[in-house]
Amino acid sequence: MQALSTTDKILNACDALFYVKGLQAVSVDQVAEAAGLTKRTLYYHFKSKDLLIEAWLRRRAEAARTETLAIPGSAMERLRTAFARLEPQVVHPAFRGCPFVNALAELADPNHPAAAVAKVYKADRLAWFAAITEELGKPETHAEILMTLWEGALARAVITRSPESVKAALTAAELILA
Amino acid sequence: MQALSTTDKILNACDALFYVKGLQAVSVDQVAEAAGLTKRTLYYHFKSKDLLIEAWLRRRAEAARTETLAIPGSAMERLRTAFARLEPQVVHPAFRGCPFVNALAELADPNHPAAAVAKVYKADRLAWFAAITEELGKPETHAEILMTLWEGALARAVITRSPESVKAALTAAELILA
Repeated sequence: MQALSTTDKILNACDALFYVKGLQAVSVDQVAEAAGLTKRTLYYHFKSKDLLIEAWLRRRAEAARTETLAIPGSAMERLRTAFARLEPQVVHPAFRGCPFVNALAELADPNHPAAAVAKVYKADRLAWFAAITEELGKPETHAEILMTLWEGALARAVITRSPESVKAALTAAELILA
Repeated sequence: MQALSTTDKILNACDALFYVKGLQAVSVDQVAEAAGLTKRTLYYHFKSKDLLIEAWLRRRAEAARTETLAIPGSAMERLRTAFARLEPQVVHPAFRGCPFVNALAELADPNHPAAAVAKVYKADRLAWFAAITEELGKPETHAEILMTLWEGALARAVITRSPESVKAALTAAELILA
């Protein structure tokens, strides 16, 4: 097993801190301490907190994108797999909703470097849903419906802490795409 | 025009601070300053930041509940009105998604007094949707679908800053309830 790079150690600490406690509530000092590094070392790798937030969201986006694009099968199979994979995520004790939506809600500045990462990630997911609606011969506008159901499943589970909203979103998608 | 009570001044300041900047990022000092009061006066009215957060969310919940319950008309009319009223909200520059979802995502402690306020508010909204599905003779499980579409419209608009997700959610609701 390969040792973690310093960058990975730092970004892993961000997962436990930025996502769970929020971007504003966590200082660079806390990230450095959780990563077992000095603040000086952290700043050697990331010049500012804003760039650290951007790098952290970018790594999460790339991981989610790679995993989603690798889902095999027909349009309906891919859709069902994607929603099925949400279920264990939303019942995890550390679940706090979608990290990209949360980041955009928290970062007041629409020109923050992380805002662009979140927007591109969501545009890619919309395109992924659009490929599904196209394969099924459904109107392109249905991709926005699937996206809204996806976001709803995540946001609703912040309240319920149950996979019920994920199941409801998939049921709704199936009814609409039938 | 009646002068604002001290409590209202404080809770108005919370609207501009807690909702826009986040619960953790804002101190009681900042709320007192924005309300034009001393910290001592603020603490006279609210014994702790946690109780202040609770009172603020409770006021928002009561306002939203009263407004929603007053919507007139048939089941489909009420549903369309509720979604139509979301549109100007999600394009407002200060829009940050649902304050109740955000609070639960930010307050790690499920026993925080504000968590109960958020959960009761959402249970009431689910019941409001359930009355609609019942009036239309649709399965009770469809209320959870409407709720998921509602949350999705709000969360998605954090990304898009457009009413598109609200329109998509209503279109989906109409397709499912047809």
